[in-house]
Amino acid sequence: MMKKIANTVRGLAADMVEKAKSGHPGMPLGAAEIGAVLFSEHLKHDPAQPAWPDRDRFVLSAGHGSAFTYSLLHLTGYNLGLDELKRFRQLDSKTPGHPEFGVTDGVETTTGPLGQGIGNAVGMALAERILAARFNKPGLEIVNHYTYVIAGDGCLMEGVSSEASSLAGYLGLGKLIMIYDDNDISIEGSTDLAFKEDVAQRYQAYGWQVLEIDGHDPGQIQKALTNAKAETKRPTLIIAKTAIAKGSPLEGNSESHGAPLGKDNVAKLKRNLGLPEQEFYIPAEITGFFSEKRLLWQQAHGEWIAMFQSWSEQFPDLRREWDRVMKQELPPNLETFLPQFQPGATTATREASGAILNNLAARLPELLGGSADLAPSTKTYLKGCADITVCNFDGRNLHFGIREHAMGSILNGISLHGGFRVYGSTFLVFSDYMRPPIRLSALMRQPVIYIFTHDSFWVGEDGPTHQPVEHIETLRLIPDLWVIRPGDANETAWAWLFALNANKPCALILTRQKLPVLNGTTSTGFQRGGYIIRNPESGTPDVVFVASGSELPLALDTADLLLKEGKKARIVSMPCRELFWQQDAGYREQIIDKQTPVVIIEAGTSAGWYRILAESAGGFIVSLDQFGKSAPAEELAGVFGFTPEAIIQKVKSRFGW
Amino acid sequence: MMKKIANTVRGLAADMVEKAKSGHPGMPLGAAEIGAVLFSEHLKHDPAQPAWPDRDRFVLSAGHGSAFTYSLLHLTGYNLGLDELKRFRQLDSKTPGHPEFGVTDGVETTTGPLGQGIGNAVGMALAERILAARFNKPGLEIVNHYTYVIAGDGCLMEGVSSEASSLAGYLGLGKLIMIYDDNDISIEGSTDLAFKEDVAQRYQAYGWQVLEIDGHDPGQIQKALTNAKAETKRPTLIIAKTAIAKGSPLEGNSESHGAPLGKDNVAKLKRNLGLPEQEFYIPAEITGFFSEKRLLWQQAHGEWIAMFQSWSEQFPDLRREWDRVMKQELPPNLETFLPQFQPGATTATREASGAILNNLAARLPELLGGSADLAPSTKTYLKGCADITVCNFDGRNLHFGIREHAMGSILNGISLHGGFRVYGSTFLVFSDYMRPPIRLSALMRQPVIYIFTHDSFWVGEDGPTHQPVEHIETLRLIPDLWVIRPGDANETAWAWLFALNANKPCALILTRQKLPVLNGTTSTGFQRGGYIIRNPESGTPDVVFVASGSELPLALDTADLLLKEGKKARIVSMPCRELFWQQDAGYREQIIDKQTPVVIIEAGTSAGWYRILAESAGGFIVSLDQFGKSAPAEELAGVFGFTPEAIIQKVKSRFGW
Repeated sequence: MMKKIANTVRGLAADMVEKAKSGHPGMPLGAAEIGAVLFSEHLKHDPAQPAWPDRDRFVLSAGHGSAFTYSLLHLTGYNLGLDELKRFRQLDSKTPGHPEFGVTDGVETTTGPLGQGIGNAVGMALAERILAARFNKPGLEIVNHYTYVIAGDGCLMEGVSSEASSLAGYLGLGKLIMIYDDNDISIEGSTDLAFKEDVAQRYQAYGWQVLEIDGHDPGQIQKALTNAKAETKRPTLIIAKTAIAKGSPLEGNSESHGAPLGKDNVAKLKRNLGLPEQEFYIPAEITGFFSEKRLLWQQAHGEWIAMFQSWSEQFPDLRREWDRVMKQELPPNLETFLPQFQPGATTATREASGAILNNLAARLPELLGGSADLAPSTKTYLKGCADITVCNFDGRNLHFGIREHAMGSILNGISLHGGFRVYGSTFLVFSDYMRPPIRLSALMRQPVIYIFTHDSFWVGEDGPTHQPVEHIETLRLIPDLWVIRPGDANETAWAWLFALNANKPCALILTRQKLPVLNGTTSTGFQRGGYIIRNPESGTPDVVFVASGSELPLALDTADLLLKEGKKARIVSMPCRELFWQQDAGYREQIIDKQTPVVIIEAGTSAGWYRILAESAGGFIVSLDQFGKSAPAEELAGVFGFTPEAIIQKVKSRFGW
Repeated sequence: MMKKIANTVRGLAADMVEKAKSGHPGMPLGAAEIGAVLFSEHLKHDPAQPAWPDRDRFVLSAGHGSAFTYSLLHLTGYNLGLDELKRFRQLDSKTPGHPEFGVTDGVETTTGPLGQGIGNAVGMALAERILAARFNKPGLEIVNHYTYVIAGDGCLMEGVSSEASSLAGYLGLGKLIMIYDDNDISIEGSTDLAFKEDVAQRYQAYGWQVLEIDGHDPGQIQKALTNAKAETKRPTLIIAKTAIAKGSPLEGNSESHGAPLGKDNVAKLKRNLGLPEQEFYIPAEITGFFSEKRLLWQQAHGEWIAMFQSWSEQFPDLRREWDRVMKQELPPNLETFLPQFQPGATTATREASGAILNNLAARLPELLGGSADLAPSTKTYLKGCADITVCNFDGRNLHFGIREHAMGSILNGISLHGGFRVYGSTFLVFSDYMRPPIRLSALMRQPVIYIFTHDSFWVGEDGPTHQPVEHIETLRLIPDLWVIRPGDANETAWAWLFALNANKPCALILTRQKLPVLNGTTSTGFQRGGYIIRNPESGTPDVVFVASGSELPLALDTADLLLKEGKKARIVSMPCRELFWQQDAGYREQIIDKQTPVVIIEAGTSAGWYRILAESAGGFIVSLDQFGKSAPAEELAGVFGFTPEAIIQKVKSRFGW
C-alpha cells in the first residue's frame, strides 16, 4: 500500500507540474515513499480539523517540492480539492509555487528560501516543550506532539541549518525529527561538485541521533521513524538515500529539479509505475485507505479532546490562560503596567526597553525570547525568569548563541506553533545576518518583535562594521514590517505596546547611548506614526524639524539655539514613518504643511525620506550616506554634522537665512 | 621568550583598551601565546614591505580582538608606531576599533562581523592555490604561502563559518590553518549556555585535520602549527583551549570581553605577569628579538625576490601577465570584445550577461567566479573552462554549493588576496542571505561583481518567497556599492564593462524573462547612469517616463499607446540611479526637467525614487510595495498594474488628462 500511495503522489505531482508548465517534480518523485509512510502511519493529525493544537507539525523545508505536500494533503483529506491541485501555481489558488502559511490548510509555514524550514521546525519543537512544561499535568499531557521536517541538500548546505541544528542538539529536542532527502543532486549537478562533508558525523557532533536508510524502502522508513520517536533526549536525523525524480526517465538527473518533466517523460513515468495515463489519477483503493485512516485520526483527536476537557475541568485557570495565549489575546489595561519615565531623566532607549519588557513580561507569561549572545547589551534578559536549557523548558530566557539567522527562523517557528509572543535581539547592524527570516515573519504576518539596538554611528569606537547606516531604511523597505524608532523612553514604552497589539512583525530600533526623557511626546501622537511634540509658543514656525530616535533631542536642541537667532521651529517626532504615511492627507498636512520648509534629521541614509520632502514645501535631510568611522561618538557627531551648530549652519545656507 | 612576548602583548592590549576607555581586552589576553608563536616563528612576512605578494595571510576573524593584531604588528615592525597604539579607537588613527583593510599595514581584511574572517581566509587560501596553479613553474614556486585565521566561539557559531569550512574541506585547502581560540566565554556568559557541539567532530565531518592543544603552552602551539603545515591535503583546525583575559583578575569572566579591565585590574594584571607599571611597556629584550627576526624575514623575502627575478627572466610573458593582474589592469580595448545585440532580437538580460561574461572571460584569465548552485539559471558558467575542484585548481568555475553567505565572504577573500577579478551569482531575492559580505565588499572597496538574476515579480509562479520586491532598493542603500539594472542586452554589456572598470563592488540586477533589444540605448548615455533613449519626434514631451530593467520596454510600449491619444512622452533609461545623482544638476535637468510631469516605473518598492520626484515637476511612481504572488508573470503584470493600459489609466487619472 505504501508503494501504491507513493506512486499516486508521483503521478499527481508530475501532473501538477506538467499542467502548470512550471514547478519542481524531482523532489516529490524522490521523496514519495517518505511522504506515504509519514502521512499514513506517523503523522498525528486530523485533516478535517487542521487547527488541532496538539497535531504533529510537518514542515517541508525543501519548499520547492510543494507538489509533494499538496498531493499528500489532498489524499489525506485536507480541504484541498483536486481542482486546487489542477490550479497549481495559478493566481490565488491554494497551491502556490512554494508552500505558503495561511493559504493552505495543513501548511504550517512558508518555505522555499532554503534552510528556513529547519529553523522553523526547531522553533516549533521548542515551543512544544515549553508549552508542555507550562500546561501539562500528570496523566493529562495535552501538549505532546512531534515536529517533522523534510530537508534537502540545499537546506543542509545553508548556514542557518547549522546554527539551528546545533542549538536543537544543545536543547535536546527529542521530539524533533528531520528527514534528509539525500538525493545527491542540486541544480548545478551532482552534490559532489561542492558538498562532500559527512552529514551523519556533523549531526552527531551537534548531539543528534543519526539513522541512515534507503529512502525508497517503506519498511526502513517505518522503522527509522519508530526509532526516532523512541529517542526522547536527542533530535533525530534520518538520512534517507533517494533518487531524484525516481521512476521517471530523468531519475538521478539534475534537470528534473526545477522544470516539468515533459509530456513524454510523464507518460513514461506512469508506464514505469503501472499508473494509467489518466491525469490526476487516484486509485479507489487509496481513497478508501485514507477514508479509514481519517476515522482513526478523528478518533485520536476525539480522545485528545476528551483529555483536554478533563484537564480543563480540573484546571480551569490554566484553561483560561490556554485560551488567551492561543488566541493571542492580551490582558486588559496593559498600558497601566508600563513604567513611567519623567522628563529630565536620561536613559538609553535600550535601557528603557529592558525595563518595559520586564514590566510587561510580568503580566504576559506568553512573552519570551532572547538574544544572539548580546542580552547584556540589548537589555532583553527577563530578570527573575529561568533560562530555557536542555534540563529546563519551564523558563523564558532563550540563549540563541551567536546565531542571528537561526534566531529569526526559530522565532518564526515558535510564533507559528502558537501559545507564545516572542522577541529576539541583536545589534542593528547585524540585522543583515537575519534578513531572510525577518522577511518571512512579514510574509507570514507573524507578530515577532525584533529588538535592534546600537542603532547608528553613535555606537562610536567600534567603528564602521558596527555602526548601522543603511539598516533602518532597509528594514523599512520590507513590506508588512513595522519599523519603530522611538525618540525617548516613553515612546519606547508605546512602541512595545504597539508591537504587542500588532498583527505583523515589528522591529524596534533603539539607542546604545543615553537620551533625555522629553516633554511633549504623547501616546496619542505616537499612534499616528508622526506628530508634533513642540510648536512655537506663538506665531507660525519658520521651519519644521522632523526627527526620529536619538535625533529628536538633537532637533529640540537645534530649535532652542535657532530661537536665539529669532527663528521658530516646529518639532515633529516620527517614530514610525510608514504609520505616518497611513494617516489621511489632512492629518499629514497638519503635521507637515505645504508652506514651511522642512529639515529631516536621522542618523542613517536619506533615500527613504524624500517622500516627505516631495509632499512638503521642500527642504533638506540631515543624514549619513557613507560608512561610519571608529572614534568616540561625540567626535563623530561633529564630523558627520549631527550637532545643533552644524545643522543651523546648513539651515542658514540652504534657506538663505 | 614566547611567554615574554605574550605578556608584552597582554600589557600593550590592556593599556590600549584602558587608554581608549573602550575595547575588548579579553581576547588579546587569552590568545597572547598563540600570537607570540605565530608571529615570531611561523608567519612568513616582511613587516617593512607588507605588500610582498607571497606573504602568509593572517586574518583575525574575531575582529573585536584588534588590540591583539595591533600589538603584534607594532612589535614585529610594521609601520604602526607606539603613538598609534596610544590612539586606539580614535578618529582617523591607524588603530580603529575593529581591524580595517586599507587603514593599517598588515591588516589583510576588515573583520568584526563574526564568521566573515573565516570565509575571507578560505577565499585567500583558495586564491593562493589557483594562482600557484597558474604561475608556478617547477623549482620556481613563486606562489606558496599559508593562510592563518584566528576564530572565536562566535565565529564558529555563525552559519557562514559552517558554509565556508565545509567548502574548504571539500576543496582540500591544505594551506589553510585555523586556530580556534576556545575560551568557553561569550558575551552572555559561558558558551555552555548555547554551544555544546563537538567542534572537533564537526570539522572532521567537513574533512579537516583537527588538533587540540593548550593555547597557553608555546611548545604545544609550536608543534601544532608545524603539524598543520605538514598536512598538505586537508585544512587544519587547531582547537586551542584558552582562558579569556588570562593573567588578569577577570580571567575566565565574560565581563572581560568587551569593556576595559579597569585601572586596578590592569595594575594587578601587570603585577601577575611581572610587568612594570609603566604604560605601553616593551622590554628591550623583545625589541631586540624582533630586530633580529626582521633580518631573517628580510632575508627570506630577498630569497623570494631572487627566485621571482629568475622566474621573470625565464617566463617574461607570465611576468607581464602577473604584473597586469596584480595591478588589476584590464587589457586595452575591452569594449571591442563585447557581443553586439541587434534591436529586434529578444534576450533575457541574464542570458545576455552569460554571453558577455563568456566573451570577456576569454580576454581576462583573471576573471573567475561561480554561483551558489544556480549557474544554469544565472548563466554564469564559463564554457570551455574547467571547474575548480580538490583535484584541479587550474580552473575558473567555482561551485559554491547552496551557500550564498560563504560565497560572498570567499569572494572578498579572493579579491583581497590579489591576482583575480571575481563574480558570484544567485537569485536577487537571496541577496538577503549574503548582505554581510556585500556590505564588507563595499566597506573595503573590493571590486567584486555580484550577479543577481530573477529580479522581480516577473519571476512568476515561484511566488513571493522568490520574487524580490524590496531588494533592488535595499542594495542601492549600501554605501559604495554600484547597483546596475540594465534595460536591455546592450546595457547589460556596458554594465559589465562598467563593473570591470569600477574600484568598488557592483551588483548587476538581471531579468529572468526575455526583453527586446532596444533602439536608443547608448554606451555614452549609460555612463551617465540615466539618459534619454527616446524623445518625441517633434515638440516637447507631455510626460517623462523613467524606467530601469524590464520596465524600460514597458515604458516604451506605454509611450506608443499614449501617442495614439495625442500625448508625447520622453523615455529615460536609468540603469544606475546613484550614478545619475552624481551627474551635475545641469545634466540632470536636461534629462528630467522641472516642467514636465514624471512617471517612474520599476517593479520593486517605490521608497528610493521619491528624490527624483522631489527634484522634478512632480508625478508618481509605478511600483510594487507589497509582496508578490504565485502565478504566471503575465497575469501578475495585470494584477500589479505593470501593463501599458494600467499605466495609461493611472496617468490619465493623476494628470487629469
